[in-house]
Amino acid sequence: MLFHVRMDVRLPPDLAPAERAEIVAREREYSQRLQRAGTWPHLWRIAGQYANFSIFDVESNEELHNALSGLPLFPYLDLHVTPLATHPSDVNAPLRGSG
Amino acid sequence: MLFHVRMDVRLPPDLAPAERAEIVAREREYSQRLQRAGTWPHLWRIAGQYANFSIFDVESNEELHNALSGLPLFPYLDLHVTPLATHPSDVNAPLRGSG
Amino acid sequence: MLFHVRMDVRLPPDLAPAERAEIVAREREYSQRLQRAGTWPHLWRIAGQYANFSIFDVESNEELHNALSGLPLFPYLDLHVTPLATHPSDVNAPLRGSG
Amino acid sequence: MLFHVRMDVRLPPDLAPAERAEIVAREREYSQRLQRAGTWPHLWRIAGQYANFSIFDVESNEELHNALSGLPLFPYLDLHVTPLATHPSDVNAPLRGSG
Amino acid sequence: MLFHVRMDVRLPPDLAPAERAEIVAREREYSQRLQRAGTWPHLWRIAGQYANFSIFDVESNEELHNALSGLPLFPYLDLHVTPLATHPSDVNAPLRGSG
Amino acid sequence: MLFHVRMDVRLPPDLAPAERAEIVAREREYSQRLQRAGTWPHLWRIAGQYANFSIFDVESNEELHNALSGLPLFPYLDLHVTPLATHPSDVNAPLRGSG
Amino acid sequence: MLFHVRMDVRLPPDLAPAERAEIVAREREYSQRLQRAGTWPHLWRIAGQYANFSIFDVESNEELHNALSGLPLFPYLDLHVTPLATHPSDVNAPLRGSG
Amino acid sequence: MLFHVRMDVRLPPDLAPAERAEIVAREREYSQRLQRAGTWPHLWRIAGQYANFSIFDVESNEELHNALSGLPLFPYLDLHVTPLATHPSDVNAPLRGSG
Amino acid sequence: MLFHVRMDVRLPPDLAPAERAEIVAREREYSQRLQRAGTWPHLWRIAGQYANFSIFDVESNEELHNALSGLPLFPYLDLHVTPLATHPSDVNAPLRGSG
Amino acid sequence: MLFHVRMDVRLPPDLAPAERAEIVAREREYSQRLQRAGTWPHLWRIAGQYANFSIFDVESNEELHNALSGLPLFPYLDLHVTPLATHPSDVNAPLRGSG
Repeated sequence: MLFHVRMDVRLPPDLAPAERAEIVAREREYSQRLQRAGTWPHLWRIAGQYANFSIFDVESNEELHNALSGLPLFPYLDLHVTPLATHPSDVNAPLRGSG
Repeated sequence: MLFHVRMDVRLPPDLAPAERAEIVAREREYSQRLQRAGTWPHLWRIAGQYANFSIFDVESNEELHNALSGLPLFPYLDLHVTPLATHPSDVNAPLRGSG
Repeated sequence: MLFHVRMDVRLPPDLAPAERAEIVAREREYSQRLQRAGTWPHLWRIAGQYANFSIFDVESNEELHNALSGLPLFPYLDLHVTPLATHPSDVNAPLRGSG
Repeated sequence: MLFHVRMDVRLPPDLAPAERAEIVAREREYSQRLQRAGTWPHLWRIAGQYANFSIFDVESNEELHNALSGLPLFPYLDLHVTPLATHPSDVNAPLRGSG
Repeated sequence: MLFHVRMDVRLPPDLAPAERAEIVAREREYSQRLQRAGTWPHLWRIAGQYANFSIFDVESNEELHNALSGLPLFPYLDLHVTPLATHPSDVNAPLRGSG
Repeated sequence: MLFHVRMDVRLPPDLAPAERAEIVAREREYSQRLQRAGTWPHLWRIAGQYANFSIFDVESNEELHNALSGLPLFPYLDLHVTPLATHPSDVNAPLRGSG
Repeated sequence: MLFHVRMDVRLPPDLAPAERAEIVAREREYSQRLQRAGTWPHLWRIAGQYANFSIFDVESNEELHNALSGLPLFPYLDLHVTPLATHPSDVNAPLRGSG
Repeated sequence: MLFHVRMDVRLPPDLAPAERAEIVAREREYSQRLQRAGTWPHLWRIAGQYANFSIFDVESNEELHNALSGLPLFPYLDLHVTPLATHPSDVNAPLRGSG
Repeated sequence: MLFHVRMDVRLPPDLAPAERAEIVAREREYSQRLQRAGTWPHLWRIAGQYANFSIFDVESNEELHNALSGLPLFPYLDLHVTPLATHPSDVNAPLRGSG
Repeated sequence: MLFHVRMDVRLPPDLAPAERAEIVAREREYSQRLQRAGTWPHLWRIAGQYANFSIFDVESNEELHNALSGLPLFPYLDLHVTPLATHPSDVNAPLRGSG
């Protein structure tokens, strides 16, 4: 089940560089673990912004919330979640693509 | 080069059913042609709305504009385009994924 | 799996009364069928508005989209969907309520 | 008498962890006391956000304001209150459900 | 129990004058009946707008919704309702005014 | 001459409790003096918010600005002022109520 | 007593040219009568928009509302009114300019 | 050439009183110099807000930007600039007033 | 003197094709005449939208308003104008580029 | 390939003057290097604001993001990017200008 998530990072500009590097490194590791597990199949940088569009693939809203609230950067994120469904014109949709 | 596009369809509720069916059918055919050509690699319905999130893969802004303005539903669409770049944590990014 | 939905009805004031009565009656029947099936466990009128807050209980985003896009009033609705998760302080939550 | 409340928590990220833990614990206790008393019959986490949708059941606006302004997190909350009424299609509504 | 209501009237400029006069007259009569009954204790025109601020005094959200949805202009109104409580500095508040 | 004013209080959560108590006490005293003088005939708490709706009765915009900018909490307030006029359906309006 | 007013004209593009010319001519005459009477001391076009900023000088909110609601274009206007007071740095202010 | 400017002052409430008094005094002196030079012909306080509407009369956008960015309060201001043109109904407009 | 203008075209989808073609052709001719005269030095399509960003080079706000309000599409445009000044880092600015 | 970028600078007013001067000097040098390389062909100050409109000319979204995220002021910027395409009425467009 897919969800579209926009994440805007609001790290304070005066955060100590070491603290900043440490939290960003943990975020990267966490993100890559979920990507490799198939939970986070797409991750794109929004050009010109410290922000991304992501696609999550989870079993439930519960799993989605756990994945997102576990992000090391979570206290600094503005998150907006949109549930996705199959589009009737999607050529790759399981049952409908031949349309 | 990837672009994120949100499309909200504003078909007037009182459109004649035949006209509506005809334009929706043309939209579907147009969309599937671009999907098969690789120009429109992702297309998701936003749950509960007559709207979608799409990813386009084009050579230039010019090609993107031509693809979008050629949509049969274009006069009825609210479109919002966001240019995408590689995310430094993306495990599938060409040169950086091993990070 | 629960979703919070806000629905604002935008019926044109000059809709013919018979047409209006017919579509509202079909909406009511559709809504009550889903309520009785357990798919639509809560439905509240927003005081002073032709709008409601609803809770849906579905297996997937797919099922949610089908339920919402099947509403007889769907062409006249502004819908906003928010996925819900268990709150850690909810006394009725399956595994956590004793906290 | 039911009210719909959205609560967004704005705890500063640099709050001392002990102070944060203490206030969150008090909030939890306060919330669960009101839930058990029937004043706060529903409480849902908004997936991906430090926010919730709640339903309150009170005798008056006065009681509602006292319940909300007494929340230990009140100084850190953005609150939005919406009064609710019975929906004419609600199958569980006292006098109308047979419709 | 008091509620603050903002009403913006959106009558289409091309409404037939007779129809307009008739609905406005019915609105006036309805409004004055509720004012005389004590349900609608304050009604002010917003200077320069076809809009008003009103205070309603009702027993419940249910009664408020019935009063508002019965307005002859209801299909043409944008309504926004805000529940009110006693202000701790109000010199006329029943139990607190001596403060 | 009546004005409608919405006041949202933005006191920083980390204000020292003694300083907070002192400024709130001065605000209360100032407010009650204006209420008793007839300048501030209505004052309502917005349920669930540190905010109020107020009605001021003054001779001029000048007097209104002096009353508002003299509020002890003024540096912490978001204020929005709306001039009011007699509503043609107001049963208590001096010359029109018999309508 | 001064008020700042923004007026945005929303004449439908398909209004019959004769009807449009007639209402615009009446608006012009009405406006110039108030300008000559001193009620409407400033009137500026917003560059590139069918809109203006105006200053009104009236005795009361009542007089302001009558002046605005009498505009021939009133049913087609979005109006926003802001009450003005003397600025303490205004060199032309009656009692303060020497500061 | 006239420009309409709205200025909202965002001085932090915890600014040291001496520093605040000094910057406000410099702002006043700067403003009055431009008023006397004819560059700043109108300056009005917005009732109930630490904000003003101003009219500037300059030779060019360049001169306008220099005047505004030289304001002692500039780092604390939200500024919004709107270019103005002669209104065709303005009775004082050089060539059109006889209309 | 430069101005930045955003233009969003709101042609009704049901406009007769001949009328649409005629007005768009007149708009094109008008635009190209101003471009060749140096009044409209830049004109860019916003990708995916029936909208453009434009730069105008005029002697005054008056000339700008005349240029814009003379656009054949003017009744169907949402226009937003922003005055521009020389940027201190602009390498092509007349007096400052060597900086 | 052209992109329109709006940049709003949010430097905290209490930044140490030396630090402020240093970062602004680096921003200027960085900007002028990109201007001279042809990557940043236009840069305009928005009159009355610490903000600019810019045009970037790059080979890809990737190059755009690198150029923008490398700005010394990047942590203090609100950036909004809009992809541009050739306008069909542009007299300077490569293939269409003769139109």
